[in-house]
Amino acid sequence: MMMKNVSIALLGCGTVGKGVIDLLAMNKSLIEEQLDTAISIKKVLVRDLKKYKQMKLPKNIAITTDFEDIINDDEIKIVVEVMGSADFAKNCIESCFLKGKSVVSANKDLIADYGIPLLKLSQKHNVDFQFEASVAGGIPIVRPMYSSLNSNAIEEMTGILNGTTNFILTNMAQQGISYEAALTEAQKLGFAEADPTSDVGGFDAARKIAILATLGFHSELTFKEVSVEGIEKVTQADIQHATEMGYVIKLLAVAKQTNKGISMSVYPAFLQKNHPLASVGGANNAIFVHGNCVGDVMFYGQGAGSLPTASAVVSDVMNVITHFNNQITGKRRYLWREDKKLYSTSRIMSPYYLRMIVDNAPGVLSSISGIFAESNISIRSLIQKDETKEIAEIVILIDSSPNGLVKKALKKVESLDCVRKVASAIRVVEV
Amino acid sequence: MMMKNVSIALLGCGTVGKGVIDLLAMNKSLIEEQLDTAISIKKVLVRDLKKYKQMKLPKNIAITTDFEDIINDDEIKIVVEVMGSADFAKNCIESCFLKGKSVVSANKDLIADYGIPLLKLSQKHNVDFQFEASVAGGIPIVRPMYSSLNSNAIEEMTGILNGTTNFILTNMAQQGISYEAALTEAQKLGFAEADPTSDVGGFDAARKIAILATLGFHSELTFKEVSVEGIEKVTQADIQHATEMGYVIKLLAVAKQTNKGISMSVYPAFLQKNHPLASVGGANNAIFVHGNCVGDVMFYGQGAGSLPTASAVVSDVMNVITHFNNQITGKRRYLWREDKKLYSTSRIMSPYYLRMIVDNAPGVLSSISGIFAESNISIRSLIQKDETKEIAEIVILIDSSPNGLVKKALKKVESLDCVRKVASAIRVVEV
Repeated sequence: MMMKNVSIALLGCGTVGKGVIDLLAMNKSLIEEQLDTAISIKKVLVRDLKKYKQMKLPKNIAITTDFEDIINDDEIKIVVEVMGSADFAKNCIESCFLKGKSVVSANKDLIADYGIPLLKLSQKHNVDFQFEASVAGGIPIVRPMYSSLNSNAIEEMTGILNGTTNFILTNMAQQGISYEAALTEAQKLGFAEADPTSDVGGFDAARKIAILATLGFHSELTFKEVSVEGIEKVTQADIQHATEMGYVIKLLAVAKQTNKGISMSVYPAFLQKNHPLASVGGANNAIFVHGNCVGDVMFYGQGAGSLPTASAVVSDVMNVITHFNNQITGKRRYLWREDKKLYSTSRIMSPYYLRMIVDNAPGVLSSISGIFAESNISIRSLIQKDETKEIAEIVILIDSSPNGLVKKALKKVESLDCVRKVASAIRVVEV
Repeated sequence: MMMKNVSIALLGCGTVGKGVIDLLAMNKSLIEEQLDTAISIKKVLVRDLKKYKQMKLPKNIAITTDFEDIINDDEIKIVVEVMGSADFAKNCIESCFLKGKSVVSANKDLIADYGIPLLKLSQKHNVDFQFEASVAGGIPIVRPMYSSLNSNAIEEMTGILNGTTNFILTNMAQQGISYEAALTEAQKLGFAEADPTSDVGGFDAARKIAILATLGFHSELTFKEVSVEGIEKVTQADIQHATEMGYVIKLLAVAKQTNKGISMSVYPAFLQKNHPLASVGGANNAIFVHGNCVGDVMFYGQGAGSLPTASAVVSDVMNVITHFNNQITGKRRYLWREDKKLYSTSRIMSPYYLRMIVDNAPGVLSSISGIFAESNISIRSLIQKDETKEIAEIVILIDSSPNGLVKKALKKVESLDCVRKVASAIRVVEV
């Protein structure tokens, strides 16, 4: 008997698209044996025909620049969207749903902005919409969140979700180089883009934590509700102070749910060296999830890259095909609670590491500590390091205080004549 | 409209059974909202009625000592088996399948011995059989293995899968106490059983790695095919030598698949301190999986305990109910390949740490090193420490050599008159 066959199309043929083509070739028989169904890539949508003719894709794959070629091909049952931009991708995916095609997407920008409306639309049209690769590349986290940790009330998720910034911070620590030098190296090696804002500004991590929080907290959360701070201001001096004090600096994406509400934020943080996330080096990703019954679980692996991301995309495709074969396409239930309550991140407490450049003169410490005392913020330690005759560097650790209060106090500190600048204000995470 | 209701029964009401009862009460509305179905525990099978009457279970739960009460109750659709022993559990589960009841089991002994025959039987009777909690408690690994990492050829799995031994080894390292003292403490705290053989002998970890390898390698593997070594011979001296050399000692469960075949083994090992598994402390579990596309992924969390294990059990129950609601009960496909090829663990190469007690006399080192030279095993380092005038301790690191060859050479070494005993032979894992 001939094996069933499912034809799919790719929208986009960049790093991830190429990975999907490669993976389906590498693991062809293993995948077909599990599904009892063959997968064939029938068409690939690209922007520039010439560029892709050089790639020498397998001959049975047709390359097109016209989305109509794909949407009007009734043989194509699954469309794999691996383009990256949000708006064009959204239009394409909506068209797919209307035509009864299921969609797998690796596009975090899209999912963070339009994930829930698209999921709802897919259910209306009885098709599948899956997006495991949109968070943390190949690490299984999206499906485990809704199909393995679903017996828990999820209370907190803390992740290192951006490989670029983790690569930069790891290199700053290991090689003693500046932020700028580490960024340049990351760009050279292809770990950072020419315009690195989305990564180093924390926006990419913010999109991913919004996706995870949406699933974990059963709430329609969006990227715009994440309080975002990047790593651009982290200096080699901060890294060295962290090392001296037994910490490493990581860009964390944090989502919390308490009875007061949900908060989501992205910020660089001092992590104690024995924290399991502290040893996540290079471009790797990791996510800590705290459920009310399971306790802490962690997922770790490569958060990007061609084949790791393709691993998640193809696993989604296999899932969609299993649903075809069991005739349950579009039947997954998602729970979205109506009463979304947000908790302002400015009210969240944490200790802080502060670094200031001040005049090297008497009375400076007393002025600064006076402001903290007024604000009811208590100082745990204070070290002054003379830089020159005129300038001194002060490093202060303050006890756990509401983030908003700390920011206000720092504005006052910065307005002091004797303070040249507040160079760093980085949260400290204690286990 | 009334919500649907699914009645379930528990076989056993120990730590895990109680956890399931507690979890279903704690997270009742969250679970029901996700499923659009209520779950009610109708009956619980126990051995000793008196004992459980004191537990004050919710009044709507009937307690029985007679399995017939459960098997003949047609209202009960899912049976949760949390007893622990293999043979009685197997009989019960087979009866459930025959009666069209789906089963969720947390019983690693059972799954390791009878997992595949039971899965096949469940499919024959069109019921579900799920067992996420049989490996690593609450950590999602069984379902991710077959539904998220399924796009990969799995090449290796390395896990810390036994909490008891990890607790003992962690305490030996942190408190400088002997194996015996650490075991006694673990028993006092309820982390080890009165007869600890299954844990400290490595058999529990062996059962779990056999289950994971069966799923990951699509091969009908059994516990009996695992080469097993426990931690009973690990001494405080070994721990100290490991620390001095930058290692920690962990009990690893390792399964590998190459084109030469599949090997499975459990053994204590020297792990470099920067290995991600090295920081897994206390009673925690972690599993590293290497897929040919996804690379390394790691799953980490509590491998035992009432609520963490219940988290996995209830997630399985929710899965079964989702299958009921979608009318796909018993339809999950598993791929078992026919051509199981085993690779003898005696042919696997690794460096070794060796510790010997010898006569403090001239010529001893030359006799020992002569035997290694004959066997083509090269010595990386050798340190002699005089214990007394008569006795010396020798610590040797040898380069990567086939395990079988090392064992043979050690037998020869031990037969030397000047060697009092080969106290330790522990594999070294290098990243």
